[in-house]
Amino acid sequence: MHNYKELQSLFAAKLDGEISQINQREPIYLYEPVVYTLKMGGKRLRPVLLLMAHELFNDDIEKALPVAMAIEMFHNFTLLHDDIMDNADLRRNHPTIHVKYSSNTAILSGDAMSILSYEYLNRCKSQNFREIFDVFTHTALKICEGQQYDMDFEREDHTTVDDYLKMIGLKTAILLAASLKIGALAANAPKNEADLLYEFGYNLGMAFQLRDDYLDSFGNTNTFGKNIGGDIVSNKKTFLLLTAMELAKGETKNTLKKAISSAQITPENKIEQILSIYNQLEIGRLTNEKMEEYYNKSLLCWENLNVPNNKKQNLLLIANKMMNRTN
Amino acid sequence: MHNYKELQSLFAAKLDGEISQINQREPIYLYEPVVYTLKMGGKRLRPVLLLMAHELFNDDIEKALPVAMAIEMFHNFTLLHDDIMDNADLRRNHPTIHVKYSSNTAILSGDAMSILSYEYLNRCKSQNFREIFDVFTHTALKICEGQQYDMDFEREDHTTVDDYLKMIGLKTAILLAASLKIGALAANAPKNEADLLYEFGYNLGMAFQLRDDYLDSFGNTNTFGKNIGGDIVSNKKTFLLLTAMELAKGETKNTLKKAISSAQITPENKIEQILSIYNQLEIGRLTNEKMEEYYNKSLLCWENLNVPNNKKQNLLLIANKMMNRTN
Repeated sequence: MHNYKELQSLFAAKLDGEISQINQREPIYLYEPVVYTLKMGGKRLRPVLLLMAHELFNDDIEKALPVAMAIEMFHNFTLLHDDIMDNADLRRNHPTIHVKYSSNTAILSGDAMSILSYEYLNRCKSQNFREIFDVFTHTALKICEGQQYDMDFEREDHTTVDDYLKMIGLKTAILLAASLKIGALAANAPKNEADLLYEFGYNLGMAFQLRDDYLDSFGNTNTFGKNIGGDIVSNKKTFLLLTAMELAKGETKNTLKKAISSAQITPENKIEQILSIYNQLEIGRLTNEKMEEYYNKSLLCWENLNVPNNKKQNLLLIANKMMNRTN
Repeated sequence: MHNYKELQSLFAAKLDGEISQINQREPIYLYEPVVYTLKMGGKRLRPVLLLMAHELFNDDIEKALPVAMAIEMFHNFTLLHDDIMDNADLRRNHPTIHVKYSSNTAILSGDAMSILSYEYLNRCKSQNFREIFDVFTHTALKICEGQQYDMDFEREDHTTVDDYLKMIGLKTAILLAASLKIGALAANAPKNEADLLYEFGYNLGMAFQLRDDYLDSFGNTNTFGKNIGGDIVSNKKTFLLLTAMELAKGETKNTLKKAISSAQITPENKIEQILSIYNQLEIGRLTNEKMEEYYNKSLLCWENLNVPNNKKQNLLLIANKMMNRTN
């Protein structure tokens, strides 16, 4: 069994080889941005989860590398197009494609990445190919739906906490879930084990996103790697803000609404005022409780996996790592 | 054997049913633009060619409907994203999606259409599914490459006629070719017949595009359906302009360059001056000769198809119809 770091290295070697191949394709203005995007880095969490799930049932992880490539390619495609839609200038400290090249380049190179992900998928030799294709395509479409809900919510006044949880499920959690399930399917795992891995990944993904929301307001600048309060300043409808909107009453609610809608308020004041309301309403504790709820569900799935403990231990370590736990 | 009109009706009924299904999906801001795009109409040339190719080898064309849907969905996806990139306001006399909704909507709904095309593809039950998938994905990527070359050429000074022919091959001809081949593969046709149909479609597609270029400068406004001279006014690097640039010498070349680069010239004057050069250099005749060359190649493929004449007659009629011939 390989651990996270080993699978990361293994996948990185595969990815490097594929990047070299893509780099030779023409026209260069189509493929250069694809290479640039793939080279930006990232934790390669999804392909690693896929390979790890595969290894629970089949040692020959070489077989799972094409679908791992497909998942990573698709994930990077969504980041590329999301960055245009969100008007984001930076991704992993690099200028985004639409800034470095143009919007048209970002649209078309993204389209090519989406199709390239299917090119990799078609290299999969598994007898479960049709089901893998089905899970992949279903997930891909759901991610688009998640992105649309995310954009809708930014315009709407009545987004609820439940709406938000559904959205992050689609936009974030199901790709982790699908990565694990596809890895298992490629290894001919029993259907119920593949489904358990899906549930494990879904709940872990939900906990992971809620942790990200929490840290954006309550994290330590030195360890979080982003500026604290970015979500607050941009009025992003996170679990924290939506929970506060649902719980706040009377004067607190007025102060919250005013802080959100004021054009005069400085970012520092806005963060201070909203954090004060968050503390008053115990939003940090509520977010952590929700996160724990999902995390515990994922642990239960892990426990129910019918795989020897020594085989599935690495999966627990990766879950702990994602939640930044040492136990 | 069904003729064009019959296959159009048959496909239209299938498409209407699928549109109703898509219309019920959520979020509505993701799927409404998909429905709007599919309802804009069009000749449904690609799915009809696919069904016709299928019927040469297998009467049960119901089996080919999912892949026909996949092809039409993918084609409409490319139109949607091309319209953003080309900044086009109208498509088939309707406002384009990025005008009616927004660029973000056009990007994301287009992404969903690209994935939906794979959802339909995965409904194909053919034993040749993996090869169909391969042809589909290869073609999809080549179309992106064609669009990139097209955008590159608009910025470059040294585009040749050969570059142009390669580009329209990728952007236009191979989807017609692939539609025919996929229809044949779905019907378990012999491999060489499927390949002949590909060649037939490729050459027909080339002839079709050259005819379009020709008509934009030399067509009859009443029958062409677009304003004459649109390509000339926008300096579009068509077969006509690039051939003229390669053939023009001395004073003619200077006049041509001046007409292209002048910011003062009125559209009417520009059309008049460039048409005069086209006539002088016999660009109309040269374009028609090139078109005939491709068309004759496609006819040769048609003749070599090892299918009884009465079966393949409708395919010849569709080719003639595309070239607007009555013979």
